[in-house]
Amino acid sequence: MMGGDGPNSYAQNSEYQKQLLVSAEDLIHDLIHEHLDTENPTFNNSNSTIRIADFGCSVGPNAFFAVDNIISAVEDKYKSNQNHPEFQVFFNDLIDNDFNTLFRNLPTSRKYFASGSPGSFYGRLFPKATLHFAHCSTALHWLSRIPVEVTEKNSIAWNKGRVHYSGAGKEVKEAYSSQYKEDFETFLSARADELVDGGLMVLVILGFPDGALLCESSIGLTFDMLGSCFQEMAKMGKISEEKVDSFNLPFYYPSPSELKAMIEANGLFNIVRIAKLASPMRAKPDPQILTSHLKAVIGVLVEEHFGNGMMIEELFRLQFEKMVESPVLFDGKLWKEANYFVFLKRNARSGSPQQKFQKSKRKTKSSHIMR
Amino acid sequence: MMGGDGPNSYAQNSEYQKQLLVSAEDLIHDLIHEHLDTENPTFNNSNSTIRIADFGCSVGPNAFFAVDNIISAVEDKYKSNQNHPEFQVFFNDLIDNDFNTLFRNLPTSRKYFASGSPGSFYGRLFPKATLHFAHCSTALHWLSRIPVEVTEKNSIAWNKGRVHYSGAGKEVKEAYSSQYKEDFETFLSARADELVDGGLMVLVILGFPDGALLCESSIGLTFDMLGSCFQEMAKMGKISEEKVDSFNLPFYYPSPSELKAMIEANGLFNIVRIAKLASPMRAKPDPQILTSHLKAVIGVLVEEHFGNGMMIEELFRLQFEKMVESPVLFDGKLWKEANYFVFLKRNARSGSPQQKFQKSKRKTKSSHIMR
Repeated sequence: MMGGDGPNSYAQNSEYQKQLLVSAEDLIHDLIHEHLDTENPTFNNSNSTIRIADFGCSVGPNAFFAVDNIISAVEDKYKSNQNHPEFQVFFNDLIDNDFNTLFRNLPTSRKYFASGSPGSFYGRLFPKATLHFAHCSTALHWLSRIPVEVTEKNSIAWNKGRVHYSGAGKEVKEAYSSQYKEDFETFLSARADELVDGGLMVLVILGFPDGALLCESSIGLTFDMLGSCFQEMAKMGKISEEKVDSFNLPFYYPSPSELKAMIEANGLFNIVRIAKLASPMRAKPDPQILTSHLKAVIGVLVEEHFGNGMMIEELFRLQFEKMVESPVLFDGKLWKEANYFVFLKRNARSGSPQQKFQKSKRKTKSSHIMR
Repeated sequence: MMGGDGPNSYAQNSEYQKQLLVSAEDLIHDLIHEHLDTENPTFNNSNSTIRIADFGCSVGPNAFFAVDNIISAVEDKYKSNQNHPEFQVFFNDLIDNDFNTLFRNLPTSRKYFASGSPGSFYGRLFPKATLHFAHCSTALHWLSRIPVEVTEKNSIAWNKGRVHYSGAGKEVKEAYSSQYKEDFETFLSARADELVDGGLMVLVILGFPDGALLCESSIGLTFDMLGSCFQEMAKMGKISEEKVDSFNLPFYYPSPSELKAMIEANGLFNIVRIAKLASPMRAKPDPQILTSHLKAVIGVLVEEHFGNGMMIEELFRLQFEKMVESPVLFDGKLWKEANYFVFLKRNARSGSPQQKFQKSKRKTKSSHIMR
């Protein structure tokens, strides 16, 4: 992601992500109200601190919005409780995220103690059983790495000339898909370690409905255009064909049934809800905005791979020219991607006070019914 | 402080601070061994996380060294205990600290989960009773602000022509001293809120022995030189005299008896030890190193106040020229400043499990004696 606050920065090109958070706002509020056990010993102790982590925070504005929403829902829930918790919020992103900008952007009137926690969320970032709420919005489509097979000349999954599995053979899609499974499983297990029993997790995941074809979607076509821009630049001798062949975008877009299957296979969370979010407004797709957004998201990846600062401007000028004539701008049916809201609750560890608490709760309930 | 890793950076000019940490190393180890109650409920629970915070971490290297030392001592103490804790470390500094560099510098083989926590340590930074160990080395001589009186033309404490209380009238010294008292009390109270009962705190504080005169010391003379550099530049018309008169360095150097009195007045900590640390090697004071160090520490303050990037080089060239001829270089008796090691233990809050634990421990002991 592009750091800072400039016109190419992620901070200035993330309105889409913000709109998603707005559509998730009420859902989060209602589900916290329904599923947060304030009587649960991990949420209710004499000096209760509620710890919230946002995974993939970037430089801020949207992460602050999401956190404020979670805190307001938790506060509502604690209204009638004697213990008013203090909130500690951890903002996580990769170590090369611009944390200086994140910290400068922190709202001054915040209701929480803030920290930044650098590192990949495909791994442990916090001590065991210390988080109460984990949040991760539109970040999990980033793979931890490009599957090796797609960059190897001798592999049947070699992705020559393309930058993504969109439109590629099934071997390429499978390589991406198994990398996603591995990453998502690692993510779930790490968060399960970090969350307290009964802890809650909200994921907003960019994916595609079951059966939708990526190559017949706006995202797929955009990546195809990008691939052809690279090829044109290679033909002009501005970048090497070899470099183009080895460049792949580290994004995977799962379907809701894939998500459900992976969460069930992991087994550490109870699925409270998987719902498709209302898609952000796309009234008039603007080629300049679409290109700027793409540049904000992948510009750094391109520079890292090709190592040529100058090329970036030309690449995205070509992309803009193709975008202007692309059906992506006028064919609404191409906008097939969807955002899936996933609300999970950490299962109680066996023998934990939380498990005993849940058992006694069930007992009370059933004896009440029997009376 | 100057960020980054360049030749003027704090990271490259903090060998003195590092040497201090080395002299404190064994003391910290022994005192943790003696005073950390691993049986204490706040340190010994089923999923025990030990939380350590370093206050005033700058961009890292020395903070990592200090934290490693604390962790190794705590691990030694837990050797025979069934619960092996996980460590969570918070690195704190002001919001304009270069946290990006700090995070890039983090040791890859660290034994802890790391976070950065931006904000002034003269205020709360963490939820109540969540830290087990607080560490702050050579940072508390930074005042939260310049006492207003010393910058006001009509005040009897107006510090015209000087940059510090060194060599100034007693009103100036008193204004600095009362600001320090206020700041130190705020620091102690905030840390007392954040530490668990029985939590430990190490402070390394730059000060002067009781009775020593700052104006007859290397630090005092260095500040006097700096003051005269500013005046020369004002005479040459390069900066305004008014700006010089309103510039003051936000440093105060307490004596050990002042420290002791302030900690006792605060009343929330038990003083385990106050000791003078061995002074870092000063075999051959090098005028270039002394000037670079001063520039790394105060360069940003000067730029903020005078708003002129160019002037900095000239200022420190003048300072270097004065330094070359200064008695600071050859009169060892001028190096009067000392570093005080302060080891504190958070008193138990009344009615807390820790207080009951301490009472029962005393009871067990006395009944054992009576038998």
